[in-house]
Amino acid sequence: MKMENMAKGDEVSNQQIIFRDFVTGFPKESDMILSSSKIRLEVLEGSKAILVKNLYLSCDPYLRSRMNRIPPGYIPSFTPGSPLQGFGVSKIIDSGHPEFKEGELVWGVTGWEEYSLLTLIDGDKLSTLFKIKYTDVPLSFYTGLLGMAGFSAYAGFHEMCAPKKGDYVYVSAASGGVGQLVGQFAKLMGCYVVGSAGSNEKVNLLKNKFGYDEAFNYKEEYDLNEALKRYFPEGIDIYFENVGGKMLDAVLPNMRDHGRIVVCGMISQYNLEKPEGVHNLFSILVKRVRMEGFMVFEHYHLYPQFLELTHQYIKEGKIFYVEDTVEGLEKGPEALIGLFTGSNIGKQVVVVAHE
Amino acid sequence: MKMENMAKGDEVSNQQIIFRDFVTGFPKESDMILSSSKIRLEVLEGSKAILVKNLYLSCDPYLRSRMNRIPPGYIPSFTPGSPLQGFGVSKIIDSGHPEFKEGELVWGVTGWEEYSLLTLIDGDKLSTLFKIKYTDVPLSFYTGLLGMAGFSAYAGFHEMCAPKKGDYVYVSAASGGVGQLVGQFAKLMGCYVVGSAGSNEKVNLLKNKFGYDEAFNYKEEYDLNEALKRYFPEGIDIYFENVGGKMLDAVLPNMRDHGRIVVCGMISQYNLEKPEGVHNLFSILVKRVRMEGFMVFEHYHLYPQFLELTHQYIKEGKIFYVEDTVEGLEKGPEALIGLFTGSNIGKQVVVVAHE
Repeated sequence: MKMENMAKGDEVSNQQIIFRDFVTGFPKESDMILSSSKIRLEVLEGSKAILVKNLYLSCDPYLRSRMNRIPPGYIPSFTPGSPLQGFGVSKIIDSGHPEFKEGELVWGVTGWEEYSLLTLIDGDKLSTLFKIKYTDVPLSFYTGLLGMAGFSAYAGFHEMCAPKKGDYVYVSAASGGVGQLVGQFAKLMGCYVVGSAGSNEKVNLLKNKFGYDEAFNYKEEYDLNEALKRYFPEGIDIYFENVGGKMLDAVLPNMRDHGRIVVCGMISQYNLEKPEGVHNLFSILVKRVRMEGFMVFEHYHLYPQFLELTHQYIKEGKIFYVEDTVEGLEKGPEALIGLFTGSNIGKQVVVVAHE
Repeated sequence: MKMENMAKGDEVSNQQIIFRDFVTGFPKESDMILSSSKIRLEVLEGSKAILVKNLYLSCDPYLRSRMNRIPPGYIPSFTPGSPLQGFGVSKIIDSGHPEFKEGELVWGVTGWEEYSLLTLIDGDKLSTLFKIKYTDVPLSFYTGLLGMAGFSAYAGFHEMCAPKKGDYVYVSAASGGVGQLVGQFAKLMGCYVVGSAGSNEKVNLLKNKFGYDEAFNYKEEYDLNEALKRYFPEGIDIYFENVGGKMLDAVLPNMRDHGRIVVCGMISQYNLEKPEGVHNLFSILVKRVRMEGFMVFEHYHLYPQFLELTHQYIKEGKIFYVEDTVEGLEKGPEALIGLFTGSNIGKQVVVVAHE
């Protein structure tokens, strides 16, 4: 929120959130250190790098996986002593890359810092930068609704769940960055949709803002299995899995024949040294359920069609999105950790700079 | 093995294995009672029923599910006081059904008794009777290799696992009625196949009779995860799940990206009052694994193509099958229970009568 007058070529200070060291169990704010270094706002002659000013950063549960010493397999661990990385919205200050130009707005993986020098690597989906096409919506939407979270909801639901009109759909962590969209896409398809979340305020959002048919506060349910039977007396056709553990265990016996479970995340498990045991997997056989893991990187070719459709829905007032915004890079660690206690209401965004 | 001279219309004694009452935990022989009743060897005028003499009965792990008070959902529980039911090979003594005639050999679900009166119900796959087409192979093969078990291996592997030449395939309970065939079908496709079983004798069978590339005795492995890493240093493309529990938990982190798990059975869990917890389900997301339940009833339309192919393979000596046979209906309960201690070597068959 300072240096608005800085220009290409200047050497400026660069606030950063540094990843201190690998994390076991619940992450603490002290695992992420606010620091400052110097950066020259230009790309070296002959380099194809892109120098960006970061505007909005996205807090996503999967970032916890990158804090592990042993990388989760699909994505590398963070490097201790270097800034965190995550999806964000940025403005290009200088570019040696022929496809990107100074002044353009982009979204993709960037650093948790004021300025980042990005290098695009062919074939590395993590380094994909998307140019921002529509600016008649809040730019922060490209951290969520029109970014990775929203696109995960779209591709995870439409590509992986084979939804049909009338299907019974259950979404856990339903008010989160992904969940709020899954329910809305499902409603637009004519499905019956129930979501769960961890507070009554979130439950109200689900029912009154996002159009879920029903919603419940899982923290107030003594028996999740019974809660699901109440909301799905005929069973669940599609479960959009964001939570894992006990929630998955309660869902499994409530699935209908040939039900589909797409595994988009398992936020309840990320901070456990040993994940909870899931006991009801025999239901997969009994109900001939298909359960499949999903990673948005593998569906990037669908982003343009998602963008057109969703942008249209936004303009028509058919889709709503709630963000929980903190101002200032220094608030990033607290906001990120808040995902795991459920303190965010809606998609968690960190504002580094407004433009 | 008596009454060989009995004929249509005679009233004869009918030995039966009666299901005593619902079972919790491990089944005991005393849960199944040898009894005798009378039966007249004819079908009532106007009835479409079929009266059969049972020759061979199939012992299958799924039968344990039918002993539960609460049916597993896809199949009803046994009725206390009535004979057990299961797949078997039978000869028709009398028939009121226009499609079945006296003297024909059939396989399908029958009673655990010498003679059964079968009623075919439209749309009830459990009551499907298949006419036996080839008698140049042992008739008992229609309880296994050419019956439900072999067909489960075929449809489960080819229809559910999307196998390709060179895929790394793992089969648990690999010497059982289904497993021995899965490995052979996988080898015929050019896959690399490893199986596990519970004795060194079975491991020898896998390697020396069924052509598995490698095999191991899971009871001699301190750490199943390490065992799988040893046999699959590059990971598993296809896991044919017959076991569940700890085995599944060890398999999950060893899956390759986009690996497929078909759930055909979970024999390790059937006698537990609470199934074991499976902890490594996050691997489904990390590796984008597809895990899907499978029920052979839903693939019956493929039976003819399976039969032609497999019969041809048998004649060409490309497929082998090992049966573990007990003589006499009264040996049925012990043989069935033996599945859960692994005392059978190969497909467990009960001979009620040889013809």
